[in-house]
Amino acid sequence: MPTSSHSYPMSSGDDQHSYIHNSSYQKSGIDGIEEKTRRCILENFDLLSLNCNLSTIRIADFGCSTGPNTFHVVQNIIEAVKENRENSLVPLEFQVFFNDQPNNDFNTLFRTQPPSSKGEYFSVGVPGSFYGRVLPRNSIHIGHTSYTTHWLSEIPENVCDKNSLAWNKYYIHCNNLLEDVTKAYKVQFTKDMKSFLEARANEIVPQGLMIVLGQCFPDGVLHFETWQGVVVDRIGDCLMDMAKPGVTSEEAIELFSIPVYFPQFSELKREIEQHKSFTMEMMEIVSHPLEDIALSNEFMISMFRAILSTIIIEHFGEGVIDELFDRLAKKLANDPIDFKVCKKHVNYFILLKRK
Amino acid sequence: MPTSSHSYPMSSGDDQHSYIHNSSYQKSGIDGIEEKTRRCILENFDLLSLNCNLSTIRIADFGCSTGPNTFHVVQNIIEAVKENRENSLVPLEFQVFFNDQPNNDFNTLFRTQPPSSKGEYFSVGVPGSFYGRVLPRNSIHIGHTSYTTHWLSEIPENVCDKNSLAWNKYYIHCNNLLEDVTKAYKVQFTKDMKSFLEARANEIVPQGLMIVLGQCFPDGVLHFETWQGVVVDRIGDCLMDMAKPGVTSEEAIELFSIPVYFPQFSELKREIEQHKSFTMEMMEIVSHPLEDIALSNEFMISMFRAILSTIIIEHFGEGVIDELFDRLAKKLANDPIDFKVCKKHVNYFILLKRK
Repeated sequence: MPTSSHSYPMSSGDDQHSYIHNSSYQKSGIDGIEEKTRRCILENFDLLSLNCNLSTIRIADFGCSTGPNTFHVVQNIIEAVKENRENSLVPLEFQVFFNDQPNNDFNTLFRTQPPSSKGEYFSVGVPGSFYGRVLPRNSIHIGHTSYTTHWLSEIPENVCDKNSLAWNKYYIHCNNLLEDVTKAYKVQFTKDMKSFLEARANEIVPQGLMIVLGQCFPDGVLHFETWQGVVVDRIGDCLMDMAKPGVTSEEAIELFSIPVYFPQFSELKREIEQHKSFTMEMMEIVSHPLEDIALSNEFMISMFRAILSTIIIEHFGEGVIDELFDRLAKKLANDPIDFKVCKKHVNYFILLKRK
Repeated sequence: MPTSSHSYPMSSGDDQHSYIHNSSYQKSGIDGIEEKTRRCILENFDLLSLNCNLSTIRIADFGCSTGPNTFHVVQNIIEAVKENRENSLVPLEFQVFFNDQPNNDFNTLFRTQPPSSKGEYFSVGVPGSFYGRVLPRNSIHIGHTSYTTHWLSEIPENVCDKNSLAWNKYYIHCNNLLEDVTKAYKVQFTKDMKSFLEARANEIVPQGLMIVLGQCFPDGVLHFETWQGVVVDRIGDCLMDMAKPGVTSEEAIELFSIPVYFPQFSELKREIEQHKSFTMEMMEIVSHPLEDIALSNEFMISMFRAILSTIIIEHFGEGVIDELFDRLAKKLANDPIDFKVCKKHVNYFILLKRK
């Protein structure tokens, strides 16, 4: 049942720094595959073949955070299911399971649910890590997750151990500059992806669907070569700069490494194909509406602040946040990211069907 | 689907004034009927006759607030179901639906869930008023609610209208001193109880159970004659005292009336029996472990503060709370409640079975 791994939800509440107001990059990605999701459901979701009570369709969004993206996703899924069933006589009811870590801000999620959606589906919040079971066996017809599985269930142990070959030194994430660090992250990613798929295989009904949207690298591309990798490396540089006046400390930075791992495309494909409970109906690179745009410094800073504040605060304390992102702003202003030189993450869309 | 009526959840968080630390009176009531609940389930819950996937049992607590009471209740129900199925070969999984208003503090509920229970059942939070549908048709096997249905879905309209016969004047609740006020409350209660039962009739599977625990008056007893009624009348007196120095105002008090109605025993029985979707398997007066104890002023003040703060703050502002309950403490110290003279609420236990 739910695991108790450590968790770092997106920034809570709805102030200027919250995830709710700084998740438009993720929203663009989700919007970009809205039509693809719709078609996949129309073509692959066959209610008649499902062994269940057909009057209620249960949908889960794993790692939903606080919205508004999750509400768009489920609305789109529901509309596609309804389109599929237009001529049916049995009235359908929908129940949507919004899953995230127990310390996710469910109060804000519930408070900001669009009023119109309340006539559309019954909502529930599901607290628990999606790397373990969070729902009963055979209880979900369509599962969805977007931009979540690069968050590992824990920091690979050795990367914060000075005596280990896999020590990440003063780097604060897996930027692929140190081979042993990359290996340690990869081991954890493989383990986590297996746990994720095993849990979903239990929860999703036979013939049910699982949609996975996320970011990975094209084969051969390394994290430090991408603009996202550069931004996080610069955040690490700022933390080091702040160690000099004693706001942070080198010791604290040595013990800090963000539990995020982006696999390469073939690597991700291999991990998923190894899991025999699902057939892979589709795995595609999809375009992201913002992928060819040089993002403003302000946009990048707000986005990373919303994503990383929780984990940075837990490790370095609340006091560092404003200064850290002020310093990042200055660093990026003085030495702008050259989007023409940077390599790119790609966005993938995967459709799995439960055997 | 979920209604959007106004709501006043119990005090959130876990500070000294929170419901979580001031709900021992309700807990005593729940503990007192633990054994009765267990026996009812053993005798009335027949899994074999349920038309459902038998591998998952779905339990709902309607109006769960923030715990810890709700966790005790569901644990007790689960143990009884397991006892009933001891010899079964099919492993059972449990899913518990914790329901309360969308502005209930679900974050605290999830954060305080006993770690041991996480291996026992899958939890979900269900935001929405239980006076409307909050769950899909035929999705719940055992429903439960305790100390909740005396909260009406709204303030009966006319009781805050100076031009109405049903105007509640300077009283702040239905103390049964004004006949037309009592009538207006009764009308709302009848309507709400009907909505509650209709919603549950949809949500609970045929042969499923609904357990209702609460307080009512013995036939003939009026609210102002009970110690609870006296305490709330005194809170009203304090608000009036505070109008003199201008902390509150008479106008604001005229427009304030707490949406709580305790029916008399026969009246409640009649309302429920009118609903034809359930058979009433049991309706009994049950003893409350604290019913013969003269409660300390401190205990009463803390309890009513946890219950009424939200609605008082919404109407009069945050600033009045400390002074109001300080004044109440002084009033009760100077003029203690005579528990020997006061008449008593009774606690009832109702077991309904879905036809």
